[in-house]
Amino acid sequence: MILSEMNRDVVVVKFMELQDSICAAMELLNDPVKFREDLWTREAGGGGRTRILENGNLIERGGVNFAKVFGKLPASLALGGNDTDNESEHDFFATGLSIVLHPVNPFVPIIHMNIRYFESDSGRKWFGGGIDLTPHYIDTEEATIFHQSLKEICHKYNSSYYPKFKKWADDYFFIPHRNETRGIGGIFFDQLEFNNDQEFQSAFDFVCDLGKSFAPIYTRIVSRKKDLKFNEKNRLWQKLRRGRYVEFNLVYDRGTRFGLESGGRAESILMSLPPEASWVYNYSPEPTSVDEIFTLSFLRKGIDWINN
Amino acid sequence: MILSEMNRDVVVVKFMELQDSICAAMELLNDPVKFREDLWTREAGGGGRTRILENGNLIERGGVNFAKVFGKLPASLALGGNDTDNESEHDFFATGLSIVLHPVNPFVPIIHMNIRYFESDSGRKWFGGGIDLTPHYIDTEEATIFHQSLKEICHKYNSSYYPKFKKWADDYFFIPHRNETRGIGGIFFDQLEFNNDQEFQSAFDFVCDLGKSFAPIYTRIVSRKKDLKFNEKNRLWQKLRRGRYVEFNLVYDRGTRFGLESGGRAESILMSLPPEASWVYNYSPEPTSVDEIFTLSFLRKGIDWINN
Repeated sequence: MILSEMNRDVVVVKFMELQDSICAAMELLNDPVKFREDLWTREAGGGGRTRILENGNLIERGGVNFAKVFGKLPASLALGGNDTDNESEHDFFATGLSIVLHPVNPFVPIIHMNIRYFESDSGRKWFGGGIDLTPHYIDTEEATIFHQSLKEICHKYNSSYYPKFKKWADDYFFIPHRNETRGIGGIFFDQLEFNNDQEFQSAFDFVCDLGKSFAPIYTRIVSRKKDLKFNEKNRLWQKLRRGRYVEFNLVYDRGTRFGLESGGRAESILMSLPPEASWVYNYSPEPTSVDEIFTLSFLRKGIDWINN
Repeated sequence: MILSEMNRDVVVVKFMELQDSICAAMELLNDPVKFREDLWTREAGGGGRTRILENGNLIERGGVNFAKVFGKLPASLALGGNDTDNESEHDFFATGLSIVLHPVNPFVPIIHMNIRYFESDSGRKWFGGGIDLTPHYIDTEEATIFHQSLKEICHKYNSSYYPKFKKWADDYFFIPHRNETRGIGGIFFDQLEFNNDQEFQSAFDFVCDLGKSFAPIYTRIVSRKKDLKFNEKNRLWQKLRRGRYVEFNLVYDRGTRFGLESGGRAESILMSLPPEASWVYNYSPEPTSVDEIFTLSFLRKGIDWINN
């Protein structure tokens, strides 16, 4: 079955434009360090435009990656794991923009955003996305600003979106073997389907609005913290929290696993991994490390960051 | 169905004795730093004796862990993923000894060993195991010594073991998304079943022989390298190779995934992760970094390390 090409190009072009504008904004924060760009092609169909920034003033390592991949996949991958018929292969089309930024300063949070568009050969088409914040040190005021910004975008489209997608993020960005959330969450959604042009436009506008909000949201958060002094103790804590980020991404993150299993470009997918991470056996902050203890106490689901 | 307890106790006691003797030998190499011991219980049945050594002279971080776990598991886990009937639960019993040591000196290789015994309520019982070496810098002479030692142990039991289990290790300790092996391999085997007391004894003796060989094999390897001087460049390379170790363990290692999914103790399972790891985008050694380039050229399957 040949997949319809309707809408694909418009999504691809918009995602690439968003990549350009986000990279420009992030370069302003890292002046004079620029993103390095690598174009790559996927043997089985498609390719991408990987942009990585390392050793910037603000960002120690991060990526703003665009990809467009298509071809045939086992049903288990093509349909998002909802099909047990692993034998047959299905045509699929997927395009997305993925961002992870690991800052130098432990007081500046790690941020992640992904927006994606998917088509399967059964005729299903959908958008997905997510944006979440992983502070090494939780600051409830920052968390409120972040969640309030996301809620405002969601409410322009559907009043059910923020509560539903906030809960989804709590459940998704969760590390079961640690019984802790990755950070303070945000929003996450998948399989946002549409049945006509109007619904497509609304879903697409929502996803683009999220993309456009990324740079101002992160710039605002960064500006509050980037000049704070930090010491070796803060730096060790940052590396330990980055270790948890690695655990989440390699063990649970569906985008990472989909990418690696579908023959994606490893260096592009694994831009989400930090420049340096540490593991210390059974690490527990000292009783006097109040900021670290405070942070751990907030790594749980169901916190209402806006009204608290 | 109540599982037979025949043989279990004898395996458990032997694995704990091996843990004791291996820890004693490793402490000699790290004098005066000792292992820290934590006893833990698993809510659904069983527990373990975790022993971790950090910041030793030789070992920067490593564990020698014993565990005995039993109870009910989804069929997919209890039967090693060979059953598609995920709905039903099955009784199982598993006990094992797992070792991973990350040395301080980049010229000393990372080593891993695991021996395990498993019973399912279908009446199946088997041993499994593996030992493999991950040098940050490959030394073919060291590789020959290592593989020759393993071959000698294997040949005491069955002349088919070494070729079969060496190939199995090449296939198992492989990182598909990097298209490279984790290191120089070793041996790996699973579901070594037995049908009578004599076969049990032979399989058990083989596994114990492997366990007993661990300390002398690693002590010999270490003694050749532990006093070599290293610099910052060697240390960065070590952290990058440790990053690959993290990728293998969290994405592919069945023991790690089984442990995390079956509600094992995360800090015990994740002792395999290094104290510090790094990721640098698309890192490639400079043309003058001959030792690093040499190492990369040997990270592939099918190398005959003994006759080369």
